[in-house]
Amino acid sequence: MTELVTFGETMLRLSPPRHERLETAATLEVHPGGAESNAAVAASRLGTAATWLSKLPDSPLGRRVTSGLRRHGLEVDVVWSDAGRQGTYYLELAGDPRGIDVVYDRADAAVTTATADELSTEPIRDAELFLTSGITPALSSTLERTVGELLTIAREAGVETAFDVNYRRKLWSPKTARETLEGYFPLIDVLVTPLRDARAVLDERGDASEIATELTDEWNFETVVVTCGADGAVACRDGSLVDRPAFETETIAPIGTGDAFVGGFLSSRLDGADLGAALEYGAAVAALKRTIPGDVAVVEPEAVDRIVAGDHSTISR
Amino acid sequence: MTELVTFGETMLRLSPPRHERLETAATLEVHPGGAESNAAVAASRLGTAATWLSKLPDSPLGRRVTSGLRRHGLEVDVVWSDAGRQGTYYLELAGDPRGIDVVYDRADAAVTTATADELSTEPIRDAELFLTSGITPALSSTLERTVGELLTIAREAGVETAFDVNYRRKLWSPKTARETLEGYFPLIDVLVTPLRDARAVLDERGDASEIATELTDEWNFETVVVTCGADGAVACRDGSLVDRPAFETETIAPIGTGDAFVGGFLSSRLDGADLGAALEYGAAVAALKRTIPGDVAVVEPEAVDRIVAGDHSTISR
Amino acid sequence: MTELVTFGETMLRLSPPRHERLETAATLEVHPGGAESNAAVAASRLGTAATWLSKLPDSPLGRRVTSGLRRHGLEVDVVWSDAGRQGTYYLELAGDPRGIDVVYDRADAAVTTATADELSTEPIRDAELFLTSGITPALSSTLERTVGELLTIAREAGVETAFDVNYRRKLWSPKTARETLEGYFPLIDVLVTPLRDARAVLDERGDASEIATELTDEWNFETVVVTCGADGAVACRDGSLVDRPAFETETIAPIGTGDAFVGGFLSSRLDGADLGAALEYGAAVAALKRTIPGDVAVVEPEAVDRIVAGDHSTISR
Amino acid sequence: MTELVTFGETMLRLSPPRHERLETAATLEVHPGGAESNAAVAASRLGTAATWLSKLPDSPLGRRVTSGLRRHGLEVDVVWSDAGRQGTYYLELAGDPRGIDVVYDRADAAVTTATADELSTEPIRDAELFLTSGITPALSSTLERTVGELLTIAREAGVETAFDVNYRRKLWSPKTARETLEGYFPLIDVLVTPLRDARAVLDERGDASEIATELTDEWNFETVVVTCGADGAVACRDGSLVDRPAFETETIAPIGTGDAFVGGFLSSRLDGADLGAALEYGAAVAALKRTIPGDVAVVEPEAVDRIVAGDHSTISR
Amino acid sequence: MTELVTFGETMLRLSPPRHERLETAATLEVHPGGAESNAAVAASRLGTAATWLSKLPDSPLGRRVTSGLRRHGLEVDVVWSDAGRQGTYYLELAGDPRGIDVVYDRADAAVTTATADELSTEPIRDAELFLTSGITPALSSTLERTVGELLTIAREAGVETAFDVNYRRKLWSPKTARETLEGYFPLIDVLVTPLRDARAVLDERGDASEIATELTDEWNFETVVVTCGADGAVACRDGSLVDRPAFETETIAPIGTGDAFVGGFLSSRLDGADLGAALEYGAAVAALKRTIPGDVAVVEPEAVDRIVAGDHSTISR
Amino acid sequence: MTELVTFGETMLRLSPPRHERLETAATLEVHPGGAESNAAVAASRLGTAATWLSKLPDSPLGRRVTSGLRRHGLEVDVVWSDAGRQGTYYLELAGDPRGIDVVYDRADAAVTTATADELSTEPIRDAELFLTSGITPALSSTLERTVGELLTIAREAGVETAFDVNYRRKLWSPKTARETLEGYFPLIDVLVTPLRDARAVLDERGDASEIATELTDEWNFETVVVTCGADGAVACRDGSLVDRPAFETETIAPIGTGDAFVGGFLSSRLDGADLGAALEYGAAVAALKRTIPGDVAVVEPEAVDRIVAGDHSTISR
Repeated sequence: MTELVTFGETMLRLSPPRHERLETAATLEVHPGGAESNAAVAASRLGTAATWLSKLPDSPLGRRVTSGLRRHGLEVDVVWSDAGRQGTYYLELAGDPRGIDVVYDRADAAVTTATADELSTEPIRDAELFLTSGITPALSSTLERTVGELLTIAREAGVETAFDVNYRRKLWSPKTARETLEGYFPLIDVLVTPLRDARAVLDERGDASEIATELTDEWNFETVVVTCGADGAVACRDGSLVDRPAFETETIAPIGTGDAFVGGFLSSRLDGADLGAALEYGAAVAALKRTIPGDVAVVEPEAVDRIVAGDHSTISR
Repeated sequence: MTELVTFGETMLRLSPPRHERLETAATLEVHPGGAESNAAVAASRLGTAATWLSKLPDSPLGRRVTSGLRRHGLEVDVVWSDAGRQGTYYLELAGDPRGIDVVYDRADAAVTTATADELSTEPIRDAELFLTSGITPALSSTLERTVGELLTIAREAGVETAFDVNYRRKLWSPKTARETLEGYFPLIDVLVTPLRDARAVLDERGDASEIATELTDEWNFETVVVTCGADGAVACRDGSLVDRPAFETETIAPIGTGDAFVGGFLSSRLDGADLGAALEYGAAVAALKRTIPGDVAVVEPEAVDRIVAGDHSTISR
Repeated sequence: MTELVTFGETMLRLSPPRHERLETAATLEVHPGGAESNAAVAASRLGTAATWLSKLPDSPLGRRVTSGLRRHGLEVDVVWSDAGRQGTYYLELAGDPRGIDVVYDRADAAVTTATADELSTEPIRDAELFLTSGITPALSSTLERTVGELLTIAREAGVETAFDVNYRRKLWSPKTARETLEGYFPLIDVLVTPLRDARAVLDERGDASEIATELTDEWNFETVVVTCGADGAVACRDGSLVDRPAFETETIAPIGTGDAFVGGFLSSRLDGADLGAALEYGAAVAALKRTIPGDVAVVEPEAVDRIVAGDHSTISR
Repeated sequence: MTELVTFGETMLRLSPPRHERLETAATLEVHPGGAESNAAVAASRLGTAATWLSKLPDSPLGRRVTSGLRRHGLEVDVVWSDAGRQGTYYLELAGDPRGIDVVYDRADAAVTTATADELSTEPIRDAELFLTSGITPALSSTLERTVGELLTIAREAGVETAFDVNYRRKLWSPKTARETLEGYFPLIDVLVTPLRDARAVLDERGDASEIATELTDEWNFETVVVTCGADGAVACRDGSLVDRPAFETETIAPIGTGDAFVGGFLSSRLDGADLGAALEYGAAVAALKRTIPGDVAVVEPEAVDRIVAGDHSTISR
Repeated sequence: MTELVTFGETMLRLSPPRHERLETAATLEVHPGGAESNAAVAASRLGTAATWLSKLPDSPLGRRVTSGLRRHGLEVDVVWSDAGRQGTYYLELAGDPRGIDVVYDRADAAVTTATADELSTEPIRDAELFLTSGITPALSSTLERTVGELLTIAREAGVETAFDVNYRRKLWSPKTARETLEGYFPLIDVLVTPLRDARAVLDERGDASEIATELTDEWNFETVVVTCGADGAVACRDGSLVDRPAFETETIAPIGTGDAFVGGFLSSRLDGADLGAALEYGAAVAALKRTIPGDVAVVEPEAVDRIVAGDHSTISR
Repeated sequence: MTELVTFGETMLRLSPPRHERLETAATLEVHPGGAESNAAVAASRLGTAATWLSKLPDSPLGRRVTSGLRRHGLEVDVVWSDAGRQGTYYLELAGDPRGIDVVYDRADAAVTTATADELSTEPIRDAELFLTSGITPALSSTLERTVGELLTIAREAGVETAFDVNYRRKLWSPKTARETLEGYFPLIDVLVTPLRDARAVLDERGDASEIATELTDEWNFETVVVTCGADGAVACRDGSLVDRPAFETETIAPIGTGDAFVGGFLSSRLDGADLGAALEYGAAVAALKRTIPGDVAVVEPEAVDRIVAGDHSTISR
């Protein structure tokens, strides 16, 4: 019954109240956050039967992650481990010119030792779509191998595969990232890449449309989506290009915007929407996400539909 | 000693911290809120001797309402009931495009059974002005009758009557609202209506000035005020029109803006201000309200005067 | 794959911070709470595959309930309704002599119209055990009928049935309760009753052991458990009696203690424990519950096992 | 319509969350607190029409006091002053052996210049009972004179006078206190004194009963009440003694216990209760107070009656 | 080892959560704040060995101040006093048109009796730079004398002196301020003045550059800095003028901006930066400060350098 | 000018509000905590010039530690490192039978690579006393060597050495601990050991007095202190035994009790107190600590003296 399966690390995010500093805050807010679970949460809330695969320490911290994800209705299928840490990250959110500061504390997370053998792969085989991202192979050589094996399992089971480039420069160099990702590209049907990653990591040139076309041609992807932040997104499929603008939004919590887009886009595609409609749907989910504290998009289909429809009514009473 | 008496429902508003979602918030903030008590609080804080009439359940929730109102100095004269609920509403306040979401849970409130017989009507007879709004008759057929009876009591005692159209589409249809309100119009001296309600409910056409004139002519109101949000307000009296702009404001809490305007406008009129000055005073109270959490305008006359005077000084130290 | 199915209402509990008063508290904490979902949460966290059936309003409030339950790993299978309220209750927790004050605001909840036809009954038919409680039929005549029909469905499918008397005097009289419950008794295998309910509602006389025996004899229950708060619990089955004491506990949050006991007891029985061991397990879960804010027992099997084993070690570092 | 009038200082209490230290707490809770307004709040909530007289700075801090008092339903009749501070005090509440720490910051409060001429004395003349305490004359020589003048006004108007010794060693010496208070004694009908103050300030010897008798004889008071904390209270009137025990209570917030007793005792007397019943009523209010954060007794008559009746029922649901 | 010594009052600031009102807030946030300690904190955090001199009451409130300052790494060298209050101020921060409201409660602070004899003057003699501001002499005649004596001690020890005009109209008149400050001018090397103070207090005419030149000429200051808020700052030294713009910033907490500028400017000068670079550094610290709750600039050199370098990168992950 | 130098790890403790669970808490409180800095904070607050040596990551997390310690007045002399984590631990505090749960996340902390070469050893050489504990060598083999080298440096400089056994079973086995510690014993003057560690790690038999004597004899310590929790402490020096009971306390926060005792004991000894007085002083600090949230003893000498004097007065007003 699963439509979408995602695999990756979910961290605990610890953040002072907005505007406060880590050095002086008396309390930190706790939110689960991880690219692939963020996307699965968004899709799940929007009606897609979604499952998140991972490996977590058998501790209150690991349980904090599953508790924080399950509440959104997705299935959580994890290997509980006696070894390995729970990855965390510390986040300061402030106005300009202070901006956002991220301190990762994710080394030696339990997930870094996750192998395809120990993970539940049945959900992948039974799904319509399998998603992971470029963060996961950056975390360990074991995960680099596991990602390849899971993509292969999906491909061999006839399950569509999606991959978000999601480059993190604090984890690896552009060169290493490119080499690794290119190893996966033959196994990938739907590639999503931020424009800046396409340029910095994949060595692409030109504008988003050119890059979408070029990547499709070069690697024979079924679909390529290039996301351009406030400038919207472009998709290429079957040789034709579609683009949609972003929606205006009051940004409270930018972390997870890209994942919300991916979750919304894939959910819409799984629902049978055409490429343009799916881009628009993803953009609406992303716009909503930026108004919502935490890393996940706590959204409902009605709200997304309302934004897509351009309904900016005043207070409804 | 009462100058202004208002009658209506006051709910408990339960709202997550700004930007948070109802679904995930660990705590909700509690504020009393109701159109007629909001107006009475504003007027009371600005120096008008005000009394609020209503019916409440004899429970900690009912006491929460009176406690939250009395602190602002107004008189609270309520019938305590063993039957009927305390009305509540849930409010999410977020940035665009998420906006504001209101979930009413006010059915079967104790106030819905309030009759003119059981309410204290002496304060009305002794007052200079009696105010209620279009929300109240929408709540029950009993209240529809009670509103008419209270307006009649005021009229017969030579007390001026004011009425805020305050249309709520979640409570009744425009047609039913219009029919009910038109039954009250012969009893009303001062009509306040948002421009959008004048159009959607009262079937008026034209701009605010035209509508103010038309309503005055049609129903022989002593004064008609048409409020236009950020575009200010227009009043018609004795055949002449006055208009005043709104003041710029940083909106933190828009709920209750209209009630703050009405409370400020009426307080100013009771103080002897001319129509233009009263519109300006009401606009200043409304602008302040939007910067203040909760539904009521926690303001002082000095702050209102300062805004009317255009004093945008920097920090005073 | 479901072992335990429960059916009943889950409310949103709104409570000021411990010791604060509803009348003056600036914020209220939100927790889901309902006898049958409390039991399902406890069982689920302790390893039992559990499903909770109910009917909820299709609103942020209804979603708050499912979100708050799903995080504990149980399945939530609800009918989403456009009509009916989300039941709430307000709770003050204070030291003696102030004690605990509960204000119910649960009339006209969506669940009160739930019929056996619209609920998912497949999970009941596939389960090993079906649980509901005496609160549910007290809520509406529709639910009175639905409870009987669900018990019949379980019985006809060969699924064991359990019932917690859980008398609530704010909902119905002892006489009405007794008459209704006695209509269900022929359909029930495992009856759990607080000692005080056995006396006040079921008109039983004598001590807990005598009552357990008497009830078994009178109604031919497979198992009867009589809970006696701090005095432990007694069970009768196949003509023999077993009793176990309660564990000492520092009480922070007493609401939900009985449900935690039932969840722990049933989970243990489903795991194959004998009656005495299951009573002891339930007692340990109940003792833990009283130390945990909210209505549900956020517990793990290891902690329960440690208490059963009498391990009161100092800090483990 | 006023039954009870009280006069004295009300401070803003600033306290870290229970157990936290002033030196390190990030936030302080704000509560109004003052012996005479505490008593008036208790009486008002219990059904007595009460008015509190004082002088406050015309500032947000002064308004914080009136707002915090008015919510409890009493009348607040204050002189607003452009000079003088708002008295504050800082309170740490901790377990033993740390205990309670009070830092007064009340010098030069606006009230210290309050004269009988500027205060509203009509409410005193119209009341049945006038109350002040030994704290007030300790604050300034002006207040020492004002207290005498107000007692004289009451006496001359045939209004009963009550006085709570309430010795504060941080404000004055026992000797100065005794000399001042003895100057008032001929004007006082009802004297309330803690046993320790009777000994330390009034130089009385013996147990509470002996002291109550001795004070009555010596000064010809109509009634003398000696309070003994957990040991209850003794009253002497018309030559006969009555004593009542204290009720057991879980102490969360001990500040204001004595004022709650006085407010309850006087409210009960004004209601026509006999001396023993009034002592018992006061003791119940005091017991409740100790469970309630802040300095005032947020109580209802029903709760007091329940405690007096010895009703220690379990949770009412 | 001290480079910078500052002298002045530090108050405890008590402020409701942003947007809330003092009259209704349940809690107040506590922050230490004082012009000269704010500057010392900023400088200390940016690498300057800084010491703050003052006099504080020997109480939890006085310790709250030293605790709140020491955490930033500066030396605190205070006279602990049994007499005198801890100065406080109450601050409301709101959006326009409500703006900022400050209520001072600083009369009779312990520091108002501080004499040069009792303060530690060795740190001044050993330092490179001594800073105080126009607030300090405004607090008492004793402090007016002490400021002169400390400037003289610094001057005689060959230590550079800096002075921030920092006019506070709630403390003294422009005329008194001018007369007092002019008495100090011959002892001052570096004068910092807000443009508005130069005009309102020092009776200067013209734009910032003209004023900087004029003040330098008139009083023979080594350096004059005129700060112009969002319009940047101008400095005059050795007959030449340098100016730098302000950096754009999202203002959360404007109090302390000027002190942050002074701390950053002086720290940069002590590090050997030229006048233009120091103005720019100060402007960057000021811009950061406005994003940080409280009165002090909780900043690091790396963040300041990044802003000076114009690095407005997106999230770094 | 330093009297006491301590060396060890300080972690960030992340804990849900008391009674809440890590799995469900929305926020975590942040406190610095580490045996040796806890002791240094206590001593510093009690008047001892104290310095804490360590190695921390150059990050907001490392700065959170120094900020949290410096506020208490001690010197912080750390090596800032670009490699290595900030150690954290998660703490649940609940009533029995749930108790306390600690989850360490301290592997690979920056301090684990600290060598005697990079640390500031001048403070040790200039001090009167050097303290570390058995936790430090358990963290890495580098630290095992560093501890030995620092003890040697102290010993060679004629500085007294103190060592708290502080066994942590989650870090190493009793056997490894004993072998390591015995390697240090010839370098140690003052040994402090909990009774349970003396038995479990040092293989001692008998009661506290026998163990104190036996350890002194066996290893020729100048002083041995055996702490016995609620049963007080025993010290042996020069062949004679002294014991003192613990003070009764309401336990809110037990973590850090032993460190508070050590800090108080050593501070008292450095002040010249005899052994019995120092045990009593340490016991009073420990009793106070248990009432104070967090890991460090936020105490003043006056409070400790009051407890030692047995002054359990009521509220001082």
